[in-house]
Amino acid sequence: MLRPLPPAESLIAAIQGGDRAALGRTITFLESTRPEHLHLARAVISGLEAQCSASAPPTLRIGITGPPGVGKSTLIEALGLHILSKGHRIAVLAIDPSSSVSGGSILGDKTRMEQLSVHPQAFIRPSPSGATLGGVARKTRETVSLVEAAGYNIVLIETVGTGQSETAVHSMTDLFLLLLLPGAGDELQGIKRGIVEMADLLAVNKADGERLKIAQQARVHYLNATHLLPAKNSGWIPRVLQCSALENTGIAELWAAIRAFETETRQSGWLRQNRRTQARQWLHEAIQQGLQALLEENQEVQRLLPLLEEQTAAGEISPFTAAERILQIIGKGSI
Amino acid sequence: MLRPLPPAESLIAAIQGGDRAALGRTITFLESTRPEHLHLARAVISGLEAQCSASAPPTLRIGITGPPGVGKSTLIEALGLHILSKGHRIAVLAIDPSSSVSGGSILGDKTRMEQLSVHPQAFIRPSPSGATLGGVARKTRETVSLVEAAGYNIVLIETVGTGQSETAVHSMTDLFLLLLLPGAGDELQGIKRGIVEMADLLAVNKADGERLKIAQQARVHYLNATHLLPAKNSGWIPRVLQCSALENTGIAELWAAIRAFETETRQSGWLRQNRRTQARQWLHEAIQQGLQALLEENQEVQRLLPLLEEQTAAGEISPFTAAERILQIIGKGSI
Repeated sequence: MLRPLPPAESLIAAIQGGDRAALGRTITFLESTRPEHLHLARAVISGLEAQCSASAPPTLRIGITGPPGVGKSTLIEALGLHILSKGHRIAVLAIDPSSSVSGGSILGDKTRMEQLSVHPQAFIRPSPSGATLGGVARKTRETVSLVEAAGYNIVLIETVGTGQSETAVHSMTDLFLLLLLPGAGDELQGIKRGIVEMADLLAVNKADGERLKIAQQARVHYLNATHLLPAKNSGWIPRVLQCSALENTGIAELWAAIRAFETETRQSGWLRQNRRTQARQWLHEAIQQGLQALLEENQEVQRLLPLLEEQTAAGEISPFTAAERILQIIGKGSI
Repeated sequence: MLRPLPPAESLIAAIQGGDRAALGRTITFLESTRPEHLHLARAVISGLEAQCSASAPPTLRIGITGPPGVGKSTLIEALGLHILSKGHRIAVLAIDPSSSVSGGSILGDKTRMEQLSVHPQAFIRPSPSGATLGGVARKTRETVSLVEAAGYNIVLIETVGTGQSETAVHSMTDLFLLLLLPGAGDELQGIKRGIVEMADLLAVNKADGERLKIAQQARVHYLNATHLLPAKNSGWIPRVLQCSALENTGIAELWAAIRAFETETRQSGWLRQNRRTQARQWLHEAIQQGLQALLEENQEVQRLLPLLEEQTAAGEISPFTAAERILQIIGKGSI
């Protein structure tokens, strides 16, 4: 039974009224493979953007990663509640290309973020599923645009420690936070050197109880390690902190360090420059992707392409003549 | 003073009549950056293809490379004249991405191929100029389609020993011939291992006079070296020959080896399969390139794109909203 699609205007109004279900539904449309769903979601983003107030607070995009067992969900809960207490609205997204395989996302179990998930100013969304990291990343990047247009000014993007998904998150965030376990070198934690190099902030989590002392040792170890890394384009010198999401210690200091990064890089102009670079890159990727979609959505192209491939392969026509025929269909706008 | 463009039909008729100036002019249109030139050239290719006789002899595409001083031009002259004597029509093309910088192509000086360049059944064309190897390779690949449609059934593509241009030539030919100097190991000749691996035939040139003995030694050296290389997909076992373009010795043997390769790989089905794979790859690259050209040729897109880049960079609209606007222009077919 197909439900009729809601008009974009009603989704826009609902999202502006703080309706998180409407926001979630729009993201579902964004993640859909059906063109009419995608077009509706983009109309909502564009409508929200048009009505964004110029006096809206600037947004901050924070990437978070760390090895399994580091306590990401608990830390995001503690940090998120702290951020909410400062009067911000927060969205928590995830990039987990494995979620489509495992059937469950790292954020799928919202019960791990009990208080955050029910807070009216917070919005939590599990990783989109997708065949490729590129696809998952693109959907997440669009979701960032959507939640920001919906008024969530702090966006956390969680990922798993695969190396490639970190790079994807890094390419869409302002600041990158690496969570670490106490008492284990990065070799033991399975953290790639490239990920340590990407980090603006490192936080040794679970610095509580009996682990406090080894957490302090780990902090010193990483502090020394970061001194050996090449200087960052942003001019920011990475900081190493320690915290306990369980005991809620070091969370205010973590947020203060995030704010210090934001203030410094906003003043230096790097934050703006980095956003410009990222946006330009995403614009051109989105155009390429859209052109590909024009081909895939075009029935005449999809009917003709296998035949032309066959004729080209058989040497009956040149690949360029075949390409011309496809492009003529697109160029004539018979979509 | 702009000359009016000739109609495609008159170029087609002239090319079919063996008019090499008309063929050269069509290639110039193919290499042009002006869309109307490119469209005319492609109409000519397409028209020639449509009239190709099914009984036309199958074509063979041969890539040729070798270190500077190996005597490529002299060898192509000798081999080309031998091929012509067997009743074939031969086209000699080149890929030399440096030619746009140096201002002269390796084939630019046709006087080095005195007899070949004036033979009525031969057609010689220097490397297209272009900013990138990809651009140069694409133009050359289209020129292969054109000269084949014009009835030249043997196509030689010469390149310089840069490594990357060899890969480009390899991706558009059936057989790859590596020319070698006598008396120097491949380390000394600056030949990358990857290029030796690509070669189906290796020929030690300048095996004449006092160099005959060291040429024979070099031949044995390379024969041993090729035995250590991984087996080829084609099943063909590379052969190492020696020849002298100057004394015209070993040229008939070189042509016989080329024919042996052709016979073996045609019978095994590899030649056909390889052409299919190459054609499919070029088809998809040509579509991508064509989509890019749709953007570049569209005045509305070119007017709007810088503005959208600016708005995206400033965070006023999302990269995806900006991309949608560009794609709407293309999708509406307002080209």
